[in-house]
Amino acid sequence: MIETFLKRFKGLKKNTIAIAGAHDESVLGAVKQALDFSIAEFFLVGDKAKIETISKQVSLDLKKVSVVEETDEIQCAKKAVSLVKDGKASALMKGKVETSTILKAVLDKENGLRGTRKLSHVAMFLVPTYHKILFVTDAAININPTFDDKKDIIENAVSAVNALGVSKPKVALICAKEHVDEKMPVTLEYQKLVEMNRADEIKNCIIDGPFALDNAVSKDAAKTKGIVSDVAGDADIIFCPEIISANVMYKSLTLFANASVGGAIIGANAPVILTSRADSSENKLLSIALGAIIGGSN
Amino acid sequence: MIETFLKRFKGLKKNTIAIAGAHDESVLGAVKQALDFSIAEFFLVGDKAKIETISKQVSLDLKKVSVVEETDEIQCAKKAVSLVKDGKASALMKGKVETSTILKAVLDKENGLRGTRKLSHVAMFLVPTYHKILFVTDAAININPTFDDKKDIIENAVSAVNALGVSKPKVALICAKEHVDEKMPVTLEYQKLVEMNRADEIKNCIIDGPFALDNAVSKDAAKTKGIVSDVAGDADIIFCPEIISANVMYKSLTLFANASVGGAIIGANAPVILTSRADSSENKLLSIALGAIIGGSN
Repeated sequence: MIETFLKRFKGLKKNTIAIAGAHDESVLGAVKQALDFSIAEFFLVGDKAKIETISKQVSLDLKKVSVVEETDEIQCAKKAVSLVKDGKASALMKGKVETSTILKAVLDKENGLRGTRKLSHVAMFLVPTYHKILFVTDAAININPTFDDKKDIIENAVSAVNALGVSKPKVALICAKEHVDEKMPVTLEYQKLVEMNRADEIKNCIIDGPFALDNAVSKDAAKTKGIVSDVAGDADIIFCPEIISANVMYKSLTLFANASVGGAIIGANAPVILTSRADSSENKLLSIALGAIIGGSN
Repeated sequence: MIETFLKRFKGLKKNTIAIAGAHDESVLGAVKQALDFSIAEFFLVGDKAKIETISKQVSLDLKKVSVVEETDEIQCAKKAVSLVKDGKASALMKGKVETSTILKAVLDKENGLRGTRKLSHVAMFLVPTYHKILFVTDAAININPTFDDKKDIIENAVSAVNALGVSKPKVALICAKEHVDEKMPVTLEYQKLVEMNRADEIKNCIIDGPFALDNAVSKDAAKTKGIVSDVAGDADIIFCPEIISANVMYKSLTLFANASVGGAIIGANAPVILTSRADSSENKLLSIALGAIIGGSN
């Protein structure tokens, strides 16, 4: 499944990713793989001596990348951000620096990459039991998003899916019911988001809901409930109202449904790719691929 | 998988289920199956003429059940509840009556089956990718449970799993993080629930959390995060803090992970089995089996 996905990159213009703190075995192993699949090109900002040693261990040919010497963590983040700001790279990737350090550099008012939207996390899943690529947001950044945050989170995810070539992704607003119900206040917000989409105030997507998850991803379930909607049973993006339900969705897809996943933080002028040591190499590749695609579209 | 589960019933004392509004094809089809697997015995409260006609269609031998004539919906619910109150049956099942009608009869102060706990829903999953039976609560009844409600919901689920023969089920309190964090107020409630369990104020189980879902069900994920807990990676019960995350968990297990599921409403002096027309016959059987076991333990 992932091979089919990665084949899309063959022959495309390669985007460049700037890694903050590249002196890390897990990160350089992923870089080697990404080069093998021709997914992206790289600036490795980090401790040059360590990068050289680790590269030998993971069989990474440093002639294929650009190395920028920097041993200080904060400076690693700043230099990687500068590479994007100067147009030399179009996506960032976290290496051996804290997530908070790289996000601080991204959000810096003077030298950062701050856009007009709130930052949010989008996860891209290849699920063996679903008929298309499925995106889930926001399982990692926004705990209890306000209405305006929800709009930003949706627009961030839509821009990511647009970048993948889906011009009008279907966004399902998830709740436990299919009807607007004052006992579940989020359904009133959902009603407003659907209206804004219909009035073209949220563009480049089709938003509908509230849906229980089954109605968003199963045409049979939607039919049984008598739901008529272009989104029902065919969602591209699963929007969960807060972090816990999104996180449960994310984890149950990877743990129980054997899904592969890639993720990025978006909303700034370049995506931030986060991979963790615990990720499988497949998942690291997907994150890099997602970040490269989103970065290239900005 | 379900066959292995249902084999447990062979040779056990059979419990009796009273069905409110049994004149329904989907319900009588499930009764026929439950009899074939020797899971339970039945009182069919409903329109006798219709029950006879439908029974022929689904090849149900009415000699194997007791039929109680009643055509009025509210009376169907009341009579089924009376059968439990009189000790003739130990579980209720919803047939062609509204859920609200049967719950009203259950909660009736004079003639009902009200106990001291809040009613809640428990779902029992057979998940091909998990090493034991997994319970999720509450995906259907309590929208935003208070602290006291949460305690009741946990105790309800624990009593169900105890009834299945697990004397100390492991309860994982689910959040998006593994640490108590004031930004997620539910983690403070979780801390208190864990303390109450350690002080033996919540009995017959081991409660731990907060966990992100992966740490609750994957020993590898827990190890990576450095979590040391008897519950980590080996949860029997997944407790979600509100209905949306529980519902997402429920639906993603059935839709993406090919899980079978049975469910019941518990907390009164007898469980209420709800099956819907859209349920697969496997899932209907699991619901009846779960209800029969819980009912037999009361």
